[in-house]
Amino acid sequence: MRTSIATVCLSGTLEEKMRAAAAAGFDGIEVFEPDLVVSDSSPEQLRDLAAELDLSLDMYQPFRDGVEVAPEAFPDSLRRLRVKCELMNRLGTSVLLVCSNVATGVLKDDAAIAEQLRAAGDVAAEYGVDLAYEALAWGAHVNTWRHAHRLVELADHPRVGTCLDSFHIFSRGDTVEGLEDCDPRKLFFVQLADAPLLKQDVLSWSRHHRVFPGEGDFDLVDLLGRLHEVGYAGPVSLEIFNDSFRQADVHRTAVDGLRSLRWLEDQTADAVRGAGGDPDRAPLMLTDLPAPQAPRAWDFLELRTRELGHVTRMLHQLGFSLSGHHRSKDSVQAWTQGPVRIVVSEDPRATAQPTRLAALGFQVTDPDVAAYRAERLLAQTADRAQLPDETVLHGVVAPDGTEIFFGPCGEQGVPPWLAEFGADPQDEAPASLLTGVDHVNLAQPWQHYDEAVLFLTSLLDLHPAPSQDVAGPSGLVRSQVMRSAGGVVRIPLNVAPMAAEQVAFTGAAYPEHIALACSDIVAVAQRARRRGLAFLPVPTNYYEDLVARFDLDADFVGMLESNGLLYDRDETGEFLHFYTPTLGEVFVEVVQRLDGYEGFGAPNAPVRLASQYRELARRDMMRS
Amino acid sequence: MRTSIATVCLSGTLEEKMRAAAAAGFDGIEVFEPDLVVSDSSPEQLRDLAAELDLSLDMYQPFRDGVEVAPEAFPDSLRRLRVKCELMNRLGTSVLLVCSNVATGVLKDDAAIAEQLRAAGDVAAEYGVDLAYEALAWGAHVNTWRHAHRLVELADHPRVGTCLDSFHIFSRGDTVEGLEDCDPRKLFFVQLADAPLLKQDVLSWSRHHRVFPGEGDFDLVDLLGRLHEVGYAGPVSLEIFNDSFRQADVHRTAVDGLRSLRWLEDQTADAVRGAGGDPDRAPLMLTDLPAPQAPRAWDFLELRTRELGHVTRMLHQLGFSLSGHHRSKDSVQAWTQGPVRIVVSEDPRATAQPTRLAALGFQVTDPDVAAYRAERLLAQTADRAQLPDETVLHGVVAPDGTEIFFGPCGEQGVPPWLAEFGADPQDEAPASLLTGVDHVNLAQPWQHYDEAVLFLTSLLDLHPAPSQDVAGPSGLVRSQVMRSAGGVVRIPLNVAPMAAEQVAFTGAAYPEHIALACSDIVAVAQRARRRGLAFLPVPTNYYEDLVARFDLDADFVGMLESNGLLYDRDETGEFLHFYTPTLGEVFVEVVQRLDGYEGFGAPNAPVRLASQYRELARRDMMRS
Repeated sequence: MRTSIATVCLSGTLEEKMRAAAAAGFDGIEVFEPDLVVSDSSPEQLRDLAAELDLSLDMYQPFRDGVEVAPEAFPDSLRRLRVKCELMNRLGTSVLLVCSNVATGVLKDDAAIAEQLRAAGDVAAEYGVDLAYEALAWGAHVNTWRHAHRLVELADHPRVGTCLDSFHIFSRGDTVEGLEDCDPRKLFFVQLADAPLLKQDVLSWSRHHRVFPGEGDFDLVDLLGRLHEVGYAGPVSLEIFNDSFRQADVHRTAVDGLRSLRWLEDQTADAVRGAGGDPDRAPLMLTDLPAPQAPRAWDFLELRTRELGHVTRMLHQLGFSLSGHHRSKDSVQAWTQGPVRIVVSEDPRATAQPTRLAALGFQVTDPDVAAYRAERLLAQTADRAQLPDETVLHGVVAPDGTEIFFGPCGEQGVPPWLAEFGADPQDEAPASLLTGVDHVNLAQPWQHYDEAVLFLTSLLDLHPAPSQDVAGPSGLVRSQVMRSAGGVVRIPLNVAPMAAEQVAFTGAAYPEHIALACSDIVAVAQRARRRGLAFLPVPTNYYEDLVARFDLDADFVGMLESNGLLYDRDETGEFLHFYTPTLGEVFVEVVQRLDGYEGFGAPNAPVRLASQYRELARRDMMRS
Repeated sequence: MRTSIATVCLSGTLEEKMRAAAAAGFDGIEVFEPDLVVSDSSPEQLRDLAAELDLSLDMYQPFRDGVEVAPEAFPDSLRRLRVKCELMNRLGTSVLLVCSNVATGVLKDDAAIAEQLRAAGDVAAEYGVDLAYEALAWGAHVNTWRHAHRLVELADHPRVGTCLDSFHIFSRGDTVEGLEDCDPRKLFFVQLADAPLLKQDVLSWSRHHRVFPGEGDFDLVDLLGRLHEVGYAGPVSLEIFNDSFRQADVHRTAVDGLRSLRWLEDQTADAVRGAGGDPDRAPLMLTDLPAPQAPRAWDFLELRTRELGHVTRMLHQLGFSLSGHHRSKDSVQAWTQGPVRIVVSEDPRATAQPTRLAALGFQVTDPDVAAYRAERLLAQTADRAQLPDETVLHGVVAPDGTEIFFGPCGEQGVPPWLAEFGADPQDEAPASLLTGVDHVNLAQPWQHYDEAVLFLTSLLDLHPAPSQDVAGPSGLVRSQVMRSAGGVVRIPLNVAPMAAEQVAFTGAAYPEHIALACSDIVAVAQRARRRGLAFLPVPTNYYEDLVARFDLDADFVGMLESNGLLYDRDETGEFLHFYTPTLGEVFVEVVQRLDGYEGFGAPNAPVRLASQYRELARRDMMRS
């Protein structure tokens, strides 16, 4: 499949956009006219740069309000068209996007419009230019792809074809049924955009909230499958107007975009094959990837710290034991408790962050396949020093900087790498109150949130649950749970308020956290307290409100308060949990789920946020 | 008028919110239950704090899904109500907000609902609590204020009344007609929120986009006028759910909120008086302010710089002459050209910003009245050292930190303070190509944008024109023109992209600029170039595109290009302009309007932004 991206998706100068698209691996680009107009490179220089970068200039766009105009205005349209065609000849691009008219008072007679398209086609032919006619969703008269295509058929000119744009189709609730019956020679261009389903006016939805395929709610697999079936031969191009992309680093946006096309291609190849077709058939040739390796279990979590004593004290308070130090890396320790393995690596440099969640390890059926798929999906490799006789862990870097490792499943869930810490597999594991990793919350910068969701979906086969907002003293925190099909792995992504003046003074990033599951939270809490752990304080008002909300027994609430536990309930079960104070940028939660409780204690999140806010303010006061 | 604010409007802890509301000057607050639940102060401690701050606790809220429930669920509602009332007794607040039910499967029979309201009233009466029943716009059965009020009348209980919320009324397109005929004793509470008219689902509109009165599109003057007419006796309270406020500094949000109420009160008093009424009549007693002093002319602009030579060189290149140095302030100079006066103050400290726009001065009919009105609208005073025999300029600080001064009109527009620079009023002013200040662009932090609009509206009587977005290489820039009724003063506010990774490396703030009007831009440009000014570069592609867009004469475009001028056209006229390079955080634009052109050259803004982006990148490269 030939991949392309419109320069409007990317930030920076036109030259920066071209270099980023080429570096990510796109075959071509669409040149967005305003990017060229503000560029200080001439069309010829841009043509040379494209040749040097081996990037094809697939389209020049947009040509607005050129057809469907009053007869007396049409000569000026043709004049404008000639100027564009001359420019396109200098630039070396041969397809021009012609948008349906959005102005008022336009031609409404289809035969007359087709006549204008044909006349425009004659002019374009003089310059060897093809016109790709696109129905804008808010076009005054032409606003469906079927109408645009009918006009193209009516015009019946070899230089006039249709441009399909998934946003303009799906945003109107339209379908692509019947696309497979079109004449493929009349389909000149395809632009893909995804979008979340929003209830707002379609113009600002289109201008601000488009996202890359797989990051929204449109059925683009169906569209691409039909394009394959009909024999579409042109580029598949991304055209995304998105406020975040415009501000983000151009290189990572380009990589995110190409990943979305590779993922979509893979999904579509699966669907085509499932329907008895051949995805590899020309001209579209949908390349597919090996199936994703969904995590079968949490392998380990890694904390990196320059305050080693703080971390190991807390782990001990929570019941962890030191399994040993890594035999070739002095600064790395493994702490375990039952099925939970936490790797602690010390980074004593004064400039290092105090404590942060550095990596997540997953056990998968075939780590090599997982790594190969990740590479094809353009994931950046996480490099770790490994000696030849040590277990190979393939690692990639997630959009938020967290490293993600794929390891083998190991015998009875015990990973082979643990032996490198001197742990003897014959040792009887001590009885453990912890039953596993319940979930891990990762903080996301807002401008990379959609990228993170697609990354976790495409590499780890995690899928988003409905998102929700949680109120804290410094603003709303968006929370989006990503979960594996069986629920083995649950990763809530948190997007913190972006420019919180209230917390700016603390200089602290929004903390991440590890939630550990246990079978007896009172025992875990009491052991931790005995070993000196001071929990994150929970206000008395909270317990009084619990009584009002749930009509709970006073003794039970007294037990919760004396053990510092929080409580929630859903239709099926109950949830008990507590939080540790924050070390650097990480804290730990211990949870106990009863009778199939499915949530994450979201009603208690504001209590935690307020308490952490006071904790930070106190710390700040002590510092000053 | 008794003023109040719901704690949900403000950021931080409940105690911080209370202190900020009291410091701003509110009479009371509504306690938002989640703020109390997460607080580590007991209800009694909060009661004491309120007493200490002289803040009344006007309402406790919300009590959700308590009425309109199935009969078998109602006993639990009453149990919850008792717990709330006990808490309210401890807290010392006596009005509880009861929301209409949003759950499904609720009671739909009005007589039965009134019966539940009456029974709830009986319970509340035991605790001396009043129930204020509010129709939520998305209530399952009760979602209009008229319906809620009819149920209150049906319930006919002294402890049961209506709560009006302007958002829930106006967001449905409803009106408050007939409000003046209600029994005022049944109107227990009024919550005000404004909002921009958005086409999106009403729940997220309500949760994220409410703004303070005067910052949106609702007709709150009409609502407040009718409350005055009907004899409403309770507090007028702000209840604003807004993503920006949640993140903003709590003190300035509180001040912004109280300013909005003072402004609304003043507007309503005018309307009541205009209709022959007496705004001062009890119980609402609408206090009004002296009329705003709209600017009659630009008085001066002040640049503050630690690179004095750069600034004076550019002023000289643009045709300004030094009028003199201030007689008591060595570091302050006045540069003039015809009616344009630029004060340049030197701040040689290495930590000072290189060059910034520090102040705007306006000539008004009565500066003392302007200053008094500003003070009543809680504007912070800008203090400048002034000797007893010097002209008194009253100054205030705008939300973005720019100082704004009110000066007298002076003879033939020449301000008396100019004499302090040694300028002799008898001097013949040299012929000037400049005809005045055309407009001044101010950069706004996104979280204070609404505050800035209300500030300029309420203090300077400027009004917003429709806003638009302008695309730059680092994201969309929102542009909102504020203009005085006659158009003498035009201030476009720019909200730059918030976390632009692309410009983060430059470390530069989004620049502000001064646009100067002239009668012969070619002469100004040629003089400037002769004096060595290098304009901000305009790419050749731009001029080629001009030909395509406007079908301009090649000689004319050649003249534009050779003089470095940009061009725009609207229905009535034409616009010629050029930009200087940026000094620190400021640049200058020179404009010439022909035949009544009304815009600001917005189509050329992307050209400027791209060129400035390249300028910054070059500067950065030279630095590294």
